[in-house]
Amino acid sequence: MARILDGKATAAEIKAEVAAGIEELEAAGRSVRLDVVLVGDDPASATYVGGKEADASQVGMASRVHRFPAGVTQQRLTDLVDELNHDPAVSGFIVQLPLPEGLDPLPLISRIRPEKDVDGLNPESAGRLSMGLPSLMPCTPHGIIQLLRRHDLPLEGREAVVLGRSNLVGKPMAQLLLRENATVTVCHSRTRGLAEVASRADILIVASGQREMVGAEHVKEGAVVVDVGIHRKQEGGLAGDVRFDEVEPKASAITPVPGGVGPMTRAMLLHNALQAARATLA
Amino acid sequence: MARILDGKATAAEIKAEVAAGIEELEAAGRSVRLDVVLVGDDPASATYVGGKEADASQVGMASRVHRFPAGVTQQRLTDLVDELNHDPAVSGFIVQLPLPEGLDPLPLISRIRPEKDVDGLNPESAGRLSMGLPSLMPCTPHGIIQLLRRHDLPLEGREAVVLGRSNLVGKPMAQLLLRENATVTVCHSRTRGLAEVASRADILIVASGQREMVGAEHVKEGAVVVDVGIHRKQEGGLAGDVRFDEVEPKASAITPVPGGVGPMTRAMLLHNALQAARATLA
Repeated sequence: MARILDGKATAAEIKAEVAAGIEELEAAGRSVRLDVVLVGDDPASATYVGGKEADASQVGMASRVHRFPAGVTQQRLTDLVDELNHDPAVSGFIVQLPLPEGLDPLPLISRIRPEKDVDGLNPESAGRLSMGLPSLMPCTPHGIIQLLRRHDLPLEGREAVVLGRSNLVGKPMAQLLLRENATVTVCHSRTRGLAEVASRADILIVASGQREMVGAEHVKEGAVVVDVGIHRKQEGGLAGDVRFDEVEPKASAITPVPGGVGPMTRAMLLHNALQAARATLA
Repeated sequence: MARILDGKATAAEIKAEVAAGIEELEAAGRSVRLDVVLVGDDPASATYVGGKEADASQVGMASRVHRFPAGVTQQRLTDLVDELNHDPAVSGFIVQLPLPEGLDPLPLISRIRPEKDVDGLNPESAGRLSMGLPSLMPCTPHGIIQLLRRHDLPLEGREAVVLGRSNLVGKPMAQLLLRENATVTVCHSRTRGLAEVASRADILIVASGQREMVGAEHVKEGAVVVDVGIHRKQEGGLAGDVRFDEVEPKASAITPVPGGVGPMTRAMLLHNALQAARATLA
């Protein structure tokens, strides 16, 4: 029986800390505001942004959503990024992805000042992370580190295997595990003998984006398994990248889907906004 | 008997290509210039810079060395970086490290425009590399990729192990191997069971900075071994991070020290300066 790593409970802890941090800043006459740029009418994006607004409000953080129709010009968005970069009332902001067809996210993301880049996705933030310099860190991998740390699961000297190499999760995850002194292996679609490689892991992070691809054969007895995937089942409910029922009996600890990594990602966005407001990088 | 990966010969090929590229640009009325900022009178730095000038001259590339006494102010160097950033005659430039006591290299390196960052060491360059965006790449890891590629040693799907996690070599090396679709593991001083982990490698890159620390017990039969280390022996001559005599019989291919990675690093600086002059990032 694996220990279930309850992301909801840990996220609640972090949110309480963020709320306290905001009060402290406000007592000193400063405020925290998290802005979101939302373009078009993708229903999933609208839901995520709604969630972010609710999260912010829950911890007493101001937030503002800048809404645009799908037909907005790249230039208008560029101007907005510049405006938000320079507005001292805005602690940090994100551009909700994906953008509608015809708009290029990269120049916008790259233009966000690293001090306000609360998604941690701009190239300078990525470089600072990789070099071990202070930076705002991508929410999902940082949330996973927090989840492991707050469950007293040691990383130093352990074998960590990351399945997936996206810019959003896999690559920054590898950097953060390395910073924690784990021995880190990154696997991907071209990896040969994946089950063998994955089952070396003391800590296995699955971010392949493929529904239920990881089973018992990928997992060492006693491993810690973190499932980043989230997939909507046709029959209703959610599934991860891991076949939970099969892996759970073998693991020593495992994240559920939902209620594992997801809430941590959301909490870390608030954490980043507070960190940005404290201007730790400025 | 391992195949000896002759970095000198491969570097000569690359230099010939760079020389041809320069001629081509010059025929189109454009020029290539590589500048170096050299502070203080560290004899090793002076030797390296001398080597860079000689390399540049060998391929018909202009270069200029900006020399300062150890007592120069940080501000003066900052101003010079700005000047070189904006001087259209300068294709790319480097600040020779280490700087003397009292000068902080990071703000200077970070200030170099990524398009002119021919050492590939600034955080934005590191981030662009990690995200798979076009960038100027750090010379040693890029040189190693070139050396392997030009010896038809495949990386895709292979197990690559990098020993060392410096910003200069280990971390960008891991990124580049990942880009080549290798399965990549990064080891370091906190890794447990290093010999076992290292001997999984089809390709073992040793950049530990510790003289002759890697022996036969770290190497799988038939592995490709790349030695980044360079240490001056008291009795004269140079040694690497690998015990060559012991590892060579087990490896299928191995770099010598000297004459392996070193010449590749030097050649890639010229390659980067040419790439910068072509303004491929601009």
